[in-house]
Amino acid sequence: MDGEPLSALCSPALVVDVDKVLLDHPDALEQLRKRPLRDGRQWHVWLKLDCGNGRAGVLHSDPEALTLARAIAETQGVQLTGVYAHCGNSYNCRGVEQVQTVAQDTTSLTLQFMEKLKAVGITCKSSIGSTPSCSHPVKEMAQLSEVHPGNYVFYDVQQSVIGSCSLEDVAVRVLTRVIGHCCHRNQLLIDCGWSGISLDGAGKLPTGYAVIEGHPNLKLLSMTQEHGRVEPASGQLDFSKYPLGTQLMLIPYHVSNV
Amino acid sequence: MDGEPLSALCSPALVVDVDKVLLDHPDALEQLRKRPLRDGRQWHVWLKLDCGNGRAGVLHSDPEALTLARAIAETQGVQLTGVYAHCGNSYNCRGVEQVQTVAQDTTSLTLQFMEKLKAVGITCKSSIGSTPSCSHPVKEMAQLSEVHPGNYVFYDVQQSVIGSCSLEDVAVRVLTRVIGHCCHRNQLLIDCGWSGISLDGAGKLPTGYAVIEGHPNLKLLSMTQEHGRVEPASGQLDFSKYPLGTQLMLIPYHVSNV
Repeated sequence: MDGEPLSALCSPALVVDVDKVLLDHPDALEQLRKRPLRDGRQWHVWLKLDCGNGRAGVLHSDPEALTLARAIAETQGVQLTGVYAHCGNSYNCRGVEQVQTVAQDTTSLTLQFMEKLKAVGITCKSSIGSTPSCSHPVKEMAQLSEVHPGNYVFYDVQQSVIGSCSLEDVAVRVLTRVIGHCCHRNQLLIDCGWSGISLDGAGKLPTGYAVIEGHPNLKLLSMTQEHGRVEPASGQLDFSKYPLGTQLMLIPYHVSNV
Repeated sequence: MDGEPLSALCSPALVVDVDKVLLDHPDALEQLRKRPLRDGRQWHVWLKLDCGNGRAGVLHSDPEALTLARAIAETQGVQLTGVYAHCGNSYNCRGVEQVQTVAQDTTSLTLQFMEKLKAVGITCKSSIGSTPSCSHPVKEMAQLSEVHPGNYVFYDVQQSVIGSCSLEDVAVRVLTRVIGHCCHRNQLLIDCGWSGISLDGAGKLPTGYAVIEGHPNLKLLSMTQEHGRVEPASGQLDFSKYPLGTQLMLIPYHVSNV
């Protein structure tokens, strides 16, 4: 793989800066070792730990996790800056209690791993992140070096369903217009499809792919790429209330991509 | 609604030029009437007809369709340039015969509508469009003024499933890299999630959200926003065959948004 770009090693989304990298595999470390930075600069590496999320990261319970951390710390030109665990499994929670259980577990496992590092003479930063866990932090999180609060600043409908916030806390809207009256189908057509708002909410809300602000009886039933079909949750639509050009405010299910 | 932008009337995606508009409702025509173009220029209007697609358009069988066409033709500053029917219902077809049935029906209904127009002294262009119908055109389509062939130039996996093309005809790939070995889950992690390739294929393919070129046993099982999880359709993954940095070519299910 010599001569391959850095994107061969890790997702572009995870490269925070040219010298900062998240990694979870010895092969990625080996690639950094082969590409020393100039002028005496070091690669700043965050070890990604999987504390139950099940996406990226080396499993916290895997002995390889400690081996990899030591290898990072001992590699010339590379610095173990920190350990990071994303607790995306908090997205499966409903309510504060469940969220705090995940936050507690992730924090405890991360801090236990920091203790193992300390026992072999390694000190570095510790960090966890997810919107729900940072919305309802547990006391032990104060022992971490930092937290990554996700889309805490904006929130979305998904976060209100999880219990991170109330629907009133969501600060993002996607503005759309009524562009068609499909009376024979009892539907409005809007100029927002899945190019404008994520399909990620599919089937997870009684109001379809979004909440339509101020219109609790409206449902964003289905979307094609450019269009959305809106129908009433029940009853006949009063089309005179929605002339062509009417603006509707969609509160997105998942906001990170908007 | 005076002073409202043109987007109040119709989807930006449907505004081909500042003086060309697709419409399907008398209120939209009224808005054009209120906004005459300067220098003697006319609005060029395509009437959108629904010939069974069920998205936008005035129903071909609705007497209002002819009334609206006449109103367009008679409005000062507005010209009825043509009639357009999108036969997106061809996406529900499987195989040439079903596609040609939809193509035939849409063409016949559009041409019948043109005859009705002719009977009241109106002549204008006629047009239909969809990738499947233009891939397997029927003879009667030669009587139309034009066709809109969709993503015919690129194709995608969806079109191969419909029968518009073979998988070998698809000219688009999304390049991704293996960025993680999740041995405990028998999965590879890739740096392509639903920000990079549409969720539109969800559950419609045995290989998940895409076809992975040259790897018929691999399945793009699930995606988060930035990551994809790839697992074998059966058996244990041989991770040594997919070192970090391995490039995989995804053939997208739906390509219009790539």
